[in-house]
Amino acid sequence: MYTLFFSPGACSLASAIALAESGLPYRLQRVKFAENEQRSADYLKLNPKGRVPALATEQGVISENVAILAYIAQAAPEAKLAPLDDPFAFARMQAFTSYLAGTVHVASAHKRRGYRWADSEASWQDMAAKVPQNLRECYTLIEEDFLQGPWVLGDNYSVADCYLFTLADWLPGYGIARDEFPAVADHYRRMRERPAVQRALAEHEVS
Amino acid sequence: MYTLFFSPGACSLASAIALAESGLPYRLQRVKFAENEQRSADYLKLNPKGRVPALATEQGVISENVAILAYIAQAAPEAKLAPLDDPFAFARMQAFTSYLAGTVHVASAHKRRGYRWADSEASWQDMAAKVPQNLRECYTLIEEDFLQGPWVLGDNYSVADCYLFTLADWLPGYGIARDEFPAVADHYRRMRERPAVQRALAEHEVS
Ligand SMILES: N[C@@H](CCC(=O)N[C@@H](CS)C(=O)NCC(=O)O)C(=O)O
Ligand SMILES: N[C@@H](CCC(=O)N[C@@H](CS)C(=O)NCC(=O)O)C(=O)O
Repeated sequence: MYTLFFSPGACSLASAIALAESGLPYRLQRVKFAENEQRSADYLKLNPKGRVPALATEQGVISENVAILAYIAQAAPEAKLAPLDDPFAFARMQAFTSYLAGTVHVASAHKRRGYRWADSEASWQDMAAKVPQNLRECYTLIEEDFLQGPWVLGDNYSVADCYLFTLADWLPGYGIARDEFPAVADHYRRMRERPAVQRALAEHEVS
Repeated sequence: MYTLFFSPGACSLASAIALAESGLPYRLQRVKFAENEQRSADYLKLNPKGRVPALATEQGVISENVAILAYIAQAAPEAKLAPLDDPFAFARMQAFTSYLAGTVHVASAHKRRGYRWADSEASWQDMAAKVPQNLRECYTLIEEDFLQGPWVLGDNYSVADCYLFTLADWLPGYGIARDEFPAVADHYRRMRERPAVQRALAEHEVS
């Protein structure tokens, strides 16, 4: 039994969707951001980074979406959530998830979490104002270069799709209509039709 | 034959070390940052992100250290650069490399590349001033929680070590003595003794 530590609206949705797709037995456990539970002593024991997602397994805890997503794919090979027998295709998948984590998610975080990287209110406003421009650059690359279609890796669905859906879900919150990026918008709609995505949304986006 | 696109002083050193450890046939090709070659039409065709590293393989190009490092380990299994048969240990390795890419490297980049995330000079200064504090937080976690010793994953050397060495090499440039973090400093010294690290430094840090 796996336990995924999550927060509604957070990037942990990517790992929650992958679990729902995988067929593995799991439960979700909410970390209450409003009560700053991610920085509580108990949670820091589990994940010293004080972030979600974290996946508790029988062998120990794994953090970072990039790592959790590939792990889920490897733990449930019959679900075919990654090109496990093709190192080049696997690397392309990882280049994509790593770009989402290290560039796209980071670009987004400069809107509400500017205090991570600067101390003055004026800097936070400056950062927040630049987020739409940066995200548009990222999604232009995704649209034109990375998203092969219908799925990120082409014909084969993978955990990369779970992650793209999760970040694309945030776009309207940054004042960007998904339809500016037709392939991304199509991908988003196709994802929404998947029973696993609907299950994950129902479980993850609890109020 | 693999070709690694690199720049001296850049994070591409991590992938260069992994190649030197792997026994795979490779060459390095410099991307001239001083001439903004990373944004030239030719290079963008190769890596639309306009960044290094990028690894050209016979099947196509891979970007992102996290992806390239795992790929090199998979392409040269006899070099034992990753726990390829243990999905949990592999996930721990990836959680570490993903943390370096998405948090530690990103924290560093706020010193000289603040223009990525804000437009005013005052914001860049504010960001630059906060870099040492953020890096100290990151390296405290690495020192106390993640670096198992003697190598990142414990007894087994892996590509995670190549990456930690690369970012730890930058610390003095941010005004942080590596000796503030004794386990990291020890790891750094142990890495420097490895022939592959010496070869990569000689090839990568060309003037
Ligand atoms: N690189 C990490 C990022 C994790 C992360 O930043 N999670 C956010 C939610 S989207 C969080 O836990 N924020 C809580 C906080 O900053 O206190 C990953 O991809 O898993
Ligand atoms: N997430 C990427 C980051 C790559 C990156 O930012 N590389 C820097 C050098 S350390 C670069 O190419 N900078 C050139 C520029 O910003 O123009 C990775 O880990 O490979």
